[in-house]
Amino acid sequence: MTPAARRDALRELLRAAELDALLVTDLVNVRYLSGFTGSNAALLVPAAGERGTRLATDGRYTTQAAAEAPDVRRVIERACDRVLVVAAGNDGIRRLGFESGHLTVDAHAALLEVAAEKGKGVELCRAPGLVQQLRAVKDAREIEALRAACAAADAALADVIEAGGLRPGRTERDVAADLEQRMRSHGADGPSFDTIVAAGANSAIPHHQPTDAVLATGDLVKMDFGALLGGYHSDMTRTVVLGRPTDWQRELYALVAAAQAAGRAALAVGVEVVAVDAAARAVITDGGRGPEFSHGLGHGVGLEIHEAPALSATGAGTLASGMAVTVEPGVYLAGRGGVRIEDTLVVRPDGAELLTLTGKELLAL
Amino acid sequence: MTPAARRDALRELLRAAELDALLVTDLVNVRYLSGFTGSNAALLVPAAGERGTRLATDGRYTTQAAAEAPDVRRVIERACDRVLVVAAGNDGIRRLGFESGHLTVDAHAALLEVAAEKGKGVELCRAPGLVQQLRAVKDAREIEALRAACAAADAALADVIEAGGLRPGRTERDVAADLEQRMRSHGADGPSFDTIVAAGANSAIPHHQPTDAVLATGDLVKMDFGALLGGYHSDMTRTVVLGRPTDWQRELYALVAAAQAAGRAALAVGVEVVAVDAAARAVITDGGRGPEFSHGLGHGVGLEIHEAPALSATGAGTLASGMAVTVEPGVYLAGRGGVRIEDTLVVRPDGAELLTLTGKELLAL
Repeated sequence: MTPAARRDALRELLRAAELDALLVTDLVNVRYLSGFTGSNAALLVPAAGERGTRLATDGRYTTQAAAEAPDVRRVIERACDRVLVVAAGNDGIRRLGFESGHLTVDAHAALLEVAAEKGKGVELCRAPGLVQQLRAVKDAREIEALRAACAAADAALADVIEAGGLRPGRTERDVAADLEQRMRSHGADGPSFDTIVAAGANSAIPHHQPTDAVLATGDLVKMDFGALLGGYHSDMTRTVVLGRPTDWQRELYALVAAAQAAGRAALAVGVEVVAVDAAARAVITDGGRGPEFSHGLGHGVGLEIHEAPALSATGAGTLASGMAVTVEPGVYLAGRGGVRIEDTLVVRPDGAELLTLTGKELLAL
Repeated sequence: MTPAARRDALRELLRAAELDALLVTDLVNVRYLSGFTGSNAALLVPAAGERGTRLATDGRYTTQAAAEAPDVRRVIERACDRVLVVAAGNDGIRRLGFESGHLTVDAHAALLEVAAEKGKGVELCRAPGLVQQLRAVKDAREIEALRAACAAADAALADVIEAGGLRPGRTERDVAADLEQRMRSHGADGPSFDTIVAAGANSAIPHHQPTDAVLATGDLVKMDFGALLGGYHSDMTRTVVLGRPTDWQRELYALVAAAQAAGRAALAVGVEVVAVDAAARAVITDGGRGPEFSHGLGHGVGLEIHEAPALSATGAGTLASGMAVTVEPGVYLAGRGGVRIEDTLVVRPDGAELLTLTGKELLAL
C-alpha cells in the first residue's frame, strides 16, 4: 500500500468518527501515512479528500521531505502542529481530531490557544489510536520487511551458536554485542531494541540488561533480541542451557515451550486477544507457575517494537488477517533462573505463520 | 549526587511551586530521581519529605527495582501512574503536580477519573519541566560519564581515520557501521542516536540517514554521531573532504568553523541562551549564509540526547555552571554539500570545557 492509499483508508475511519480531519503528531504515524522519516513533523489529513493534506516539518528537512513525501503539500515551519491547526481553520475544518494518546497536555494546551486565536472555529477532538488501528494489519510489503528483519535475527543467533559464542567465560555484554554485530552483518540497520542477554540467576529478571556477568556451566542463558531493517522490527527470545540441563531446568523449559505452543495455536482470525493470552497462561497456571508468569503474552510489532494489538489479559479486540504479533510466555524463578520463548508471527486466514524460524528445542551447549 | 539528594533538590522546587508532591511519569526522570531503569514506572515525590516517596512498576521488574532503587518504597502494579494518584490521596496530598510536558491527554484524562473516584480530593496541577531543570546542571559524576562517552566517540573517529575508513568506494552505511562498532570497542553501550554519515550532495541534508551512496573523491563527508555509555550521551559532528578541497569547500568550512568558535566562546555562566545562538549565527549571517543555517545552535545533552537547555533563537533562560551543551552550527548548500561542526562542552565558571577533543581543522583525506 502506498502512503496515499493509507491516507484513503484513514479517511474512512475519520468519516465513521465524524471528524473533518486528523492532525497526526505521532512521528511513526506521520511516516506510515506520508513516507517522511524526519524527527519533527505533523500531518493534516482531511476526511473529504486528498486536497488539503499537508506535511509540516522544519528547515532541516526541506530536501528530505520533498524526496520522501513528494505527493503531499509541504509546509516548512518549526511549530508543525500549530501551523496545521491554523491551516485546518483556513480550510474550513471544524471537527479536527488529534492523537490524544500521543499529544501531551502542554502541547494540547498550546493547540487550544492557537485554535482560539487563529483557528476560525476549529474544535479539537480526542481521536486516539486511529492510525494504530490501520497499522496493526500489515500489507504484503510490510510482512516481507518483517520477514527480512526476523531472518537477520535468526541468522545472527545461528552464527553465534556455530561460532561457539555461547560458552562459559564470555560475559552477557560480549554475547549481546556479538548478536548485534552479526545482525548488522546480515543486513540489519541495528538492533530493534536493547538486546537482553541474561545468564544464570539473571535469567529470572524478565528485562535484564546485559552486564559483565560471566556465563558459567549450568546457566540458563536467555536472549531477547531483534533486528531493525527498513524501519521494521523483529522480536525473538530463546533460552539455552550451558552444559547438561538439570531436571528443574528441563521441566521449566518444557512448561514454557508448551505454553508458547498453545499461544501460537490459539492465533486465528476472529479470536479475541484475551483468549490467546488465556490459552498460554492456562498451561503455566496448570503447571503451578501462574504467579511467575508476570507479564502479558505478546504484542503487535511493526514500525514500532510494541504496537497494537496487545495480547494480554487486559487487551481488547480480535485478531485480523495480516496482524503481526509476538507470543512470548516466560516463567521466572527468582534467584534461580528463568525461561522465555518468543516468536514473531503473522496471523493468516488459516492460523499463523512463523517469521522467526530458529528451533525451539532445549539447546544444551 | 545520589538519587535521594536529587529528590531533596526537587522538594525545594515543589515547595516554591506550592505543590504537595510531584507525580513523575517521564521514565528518564524516574531514573534520575530513583536509579530505576525499567520501561514501565512512575514515582511519587512528596514535598514534605522522603516519607511517602514511592516507586511503582510492574511484575517484570520486581527484582530489578529492588536492586536499583533499594532506598525507595516500591509498589508493584502495572497502572503505575494511577496507583500513585490513589496513594497520594491516601497520604493527604492535595496539590499533586504532574509532568504536563510528558503526560498524554488520554493518560491525563484517566488520572482525572481516578482522582475523582479514589483520590480523596487530589487536585492534578500542571508542572512541566521541574526535573528537566535539575537535570540541566550536571554533577561531577555525570560530567565524568559524559566525558567517557565523548572519549569513546573521539577514539572511534580516530580509529576510522587511521584505518583509512574514510575513502572513496565505501558507502555511507559502511562508515556509519564502522563508527558504531569502534565506539562499542571503546566501551560504548551503543550509539547515542542514529549515526549520520552524509557524503557529497547528501551532506547538504542536515539529518541525512546513511544510505548505500558511495563516497567519492571531492565529496564533503559529514559525520554526526555519539556514544551512549552508562546512560549518558555524547554528540559530535565532523565534516571532512575526500581529496583536495575546492575553494568553495574551504570557504564554507572556514565560515562554519568561525561560527562554531564564536558559539563556544560565548558560553559562560549567566549568559542568555539566545545570546549564544546569536553569537554563532551572526558570523554565518555576515558571511551571507544566514538562510542556509536552518536550525538552532545546540542543545543540552545528558541522560537524553536532546534535553534542556535549548541554545536557539527561541530558547529561554541563562547558562549555569555544570550545564552540558552542544554547539553545532551548519551551512547547507542544496545539491552541492554542507558542513556542520559540533562539540559537546560543559559550562564552567570561567568559560566552557570541551569534552569532544577531536581537532577541527579541515581534514583532507
